Amino acid sequence: MLFLEKFFNPKSVAVVGASRTPGKIGYTILENLKYSFNGKIYPINPNAIEILGLKAYPSVLDVEEPIDHAIIVVPAEIVLKVIKEGIKKKIKVFTIISSGFSEIGEKERELELKKLCKTSRKIRILGPNCIGVYKKDLDMIFFPKKRLKRPPEGFISFITQSGAFGSILLDIMANEGVGVSKFISIGNKVDIDEIELIKYLEKDLSTRCIAIYLESVKDGLEFIKTAKRVTKTKPIVCFKAGKTEKGVEAVASHTGALAGSAQIYSAAFKQAGIIEAKSSEEIFDYAKALANQPVLKDNKIAVVTDGGGFGIVATDTAINCGLELPSLENSSIKALKSFLPPYASTKNPIDITGDATVERYQKTLEIVLKDKNVSGVACIALMQIPTLTDEIVDVLKDCKVFGKPITVCSAGSDYVLERNRKLERLGIPVYPTPERAVKALKVLYEYGKILKRK
Amino acid sequence: MLFLEKFFNPKSVAVVGASRTPGKIGYTILENLKYSFNGKIYPINPNAIEILGLKAYPSVLDVEEPIDHAIIVVPAEIVLKVIKEGIKKKIKVFTIISSGFSEIGEKERELELKKLCKTSRKIRILGPNCIGVYKKDLDMIFFPKKRLKRPPEGFISFITQSGAFGSILLDIMANEGVGVSKFISIGNKVDIDEIELIKYLEKDLSTRCIAIYLESVKDGLEFIKTAKRVTKTKPIVCFKAGKTEKGVEAVASHTGALAGSAQIYSAAFKQAGIIEAKSSEEIFDYAKALANQPVLKDNKIAVVTDGGGFGIVATDTAINCGLELPSLENSSIKALKSFLPPYASTKNPIDITGDATVERYQKTLEIVLKDKNVSGVACIALMQIPTLTDEIVDVLKDCKVFGKPITVCSAGSDYVLERNRKLERLGIPVYPTPERAVKALKVLYEYGKILKRK
Repeated sequence: MLFLEKFFNPKSVAVVGASRTPGKIGYTILENLKYSFNGKIYPINPNAIEILGLKAYPSVLDVEEPIDHAIIVVPAEIVLKVIKEGIKKKIKVFTIISSGFSEIGEKERELELKKLCKTSRKIRILGPNCIGVYKKDLDMIFFPKKRLKRPPEGFISFITQSGAFGSILLDIMANEGVGVSKFISIGNKVDIDEIELIKYLEKDLSTRCIAIYLESVKDGLEFIKTAKRVTKTKPIVCFKAGKTEKGVEAVASHTGALAGSAQIYSAAFKQAGIIEAKSSEEIFDYAKALANQPVLKDNKIAVVTDGGGFGIVATDTAINCGLELPSLENSSIKALKSFLPPYASTKNPIDITGDATVERYQKTLEIVLKDKNVSGVACIALMQIPTLTDEIVDVLKDCKVFGKPITVCSAGSDYVLERNRKLERLGIPVYPTPERAVKALKVLYEYGKILKRK
Repeated sequence: MLFLEKFFNPKSVAVVGASRTPGKIGYTILENLKYSFNGKIYPINPNAIEILGLKAYPSVLDVEEPIDHAIIVVPAEIVLKVIKEGIKKKIKVFTIISSGFSEIGEKERELELKKLCKTSRKIRILGPNCIGVYKKDLDMIFFPKKRLKRPPEGFISFITQSGAFGSILLDIMANEGVGVSKFISIGNKVDIDEIELIKYLEKDLSTRCIAIYLESVKDGLEFIKTAKRVTKTKPIVCFKAGKTEKGVEAVASHTGALAGSAQIYSAAFKQAGIIEAKSSEEIFDYAKALANQPVLKDNKIAVVTDGGGFGIVATDTAINCGLELPSLENSSIKALKSFLPPYASTKNPIDITGDATVERYQKTLEIVLKDKNVSGVACIALMQIPTLTDEIVDVLKDCKVFGKPITVCSAGSDYVLERNRKLERLGIPVYPTPERAVKALKVLYEYGKILKRK
């Protein structure tokens, strides 16, 4: 664990393979580190004196001060040599961005790396063939910021076996305003793997949900055992790629790992209390609900909508996934009727109609969230409606005081997306369709059941 | 049909209930018409002399010139009176935006409207309780453009029983750059319904795919009969809301219509050759593929990707939905190997790896699309990669010459979304996940099978 602490919070970092050429990976990483990391940065490049205003060194051995964490972007052929120099320099933690190992059939090279890690029990390696770590104050992602935005700080930590999948997710999170705590690309995982990271994140106060994109697990039993313990206090949502025979083949040529059957994984996830995402969309949808909302204590929800059609679709989805839409208490219905127009519907789904104002939403949500028959709300808001002023964001945010989960369905273009971003930043998960907003509630119910297990 | 022609292409339009107050529906409709419609516009308002620079009239009867199409936004109580005046004025076509009919239990009022339509066989009504029509040169959507953007011109025509659903879809289409031909909100459909509109759109040259959001169908047999004929030349994709008992109840209180069971609708759609969208996301995903891409002649596709993980997910999806990923011809594999780096994979999924250039995409796509074993391609492109310059857009567009369908998976934030928009405008459908890009190909295969039916 101390190792991993050094990994996420180093005091000094070396970039071995730092480049002077804009556009090169070794340049972009250095640039992104420079503008995120507060500690000392040492570019390592035998042909440079200075890069991006930082003094460069021919080798880590030429640096006099201690180095906590080395990020390696040199060609695969010289990675081992670099690590050995690092060991001499007493560097404990290495992130190997370089590809060219088992994923292209270079198993021998990867095995040597593994051996090195085992014999010298003093070093830890992330990767190879990964895109490293992203956190607000440690950005080693090799994409320039103008091409790939960085998300705000938040409570989701994301472990990914695919760098591409992970990097696009970061960009989507940035676009939607969803916060990330730690992002870790594990690549071929010669050393640090998902199990160890889950253990670390279990204790990490800023992580409230662990999301994992997996292609393979080496130690299935240990994975289940660990997850079983962690999910008692922290939700884990997992998406498994490589579920079909053909997909499993593709995994082999991607990270050189062996994937198992879909059924085995699903059963294992269930046993471990892991929420399974069945698509790449679901992992993100679920993680943002689990990280930011309380659990749904039973399957009883209300749908509040200003669009009748969306209310119907939300209802269909809720019923089909095992949720119920109970009638509200008589007192609630009475209270709703006192201010809603006669053409509104106080049945669940509650349709406050297309001329709904922020005030109407506020009063309705308060009544519904205080109702004893209701344990959570899927709120559909057509932000395009002129009567819905910006205050809707605060009204939805303030729903948190009722201690019941809320998810929001809202979609459109710039005007709407800006409001959605504000909501996400305030911890209210927003979905572009009623189906996805309701399924997120369903997952909050599922996690509630997992928490109740002995 | 002539009636409907007047409906979509009137020479003059009256807005009965035009308002002088910005923010009011009667104001916004007038404003949007003014900036879209090239014919004469007559605001009708007994208290105004002029609105938005247009001369206003107390009643349609005070207008001397002929009026082709009246858009009605007055309170429900006086709609009948207005229609009667319109009949006197010899107006043939009415769009009733006003709500306050069967959807709130005012069945009698709706019945009178229906009677009026039947007895005077010379008028046609769209609505009530709808948001009317949108096409580039006839915009009667009551949302201001700064809140709800308008999509570019294109080949999808959309019929919707829910105004809210429809309006959000317009906004999403605008955001993604997906083109619309005609958008029609049918509301309570006292007169003009989906069947008649399908018949009209069948002959409409600018419509290449008909997308329908349905809550209920009055004449099921006629609907099936019509769709069966139309789908022989034009694809129809349909999303049915109100599938569960609870959802059906919600339909009743939304548009006052009676919905049927999910199974009945699914079977009917199948018989009619209609592609069924199982979620509100799918209707849009499928429509843009069907409107812009050729059919997939058999189930054999290739996946081309620069991200290994995404390739795996695409493969899983393809296999699970009945598509195959055949090996390429030997000559193709040889050709690919001549320029791809050794760590790329020429097996299908074809992984051209994270350092792919535009040139690499171009050569690969050309070889794959010319390959006899392959009938269509799902192309995954991480647009964030610095090596992928803007020319990727042209490369993907140029794939059209091979006559095989292509769908693209690309997601992220501003930088990527701008490229995606360009692609959509060029008729290349783009999806945020590999699953959705592959399922769109699947639907192109399904429609191909429908076309082969006798």
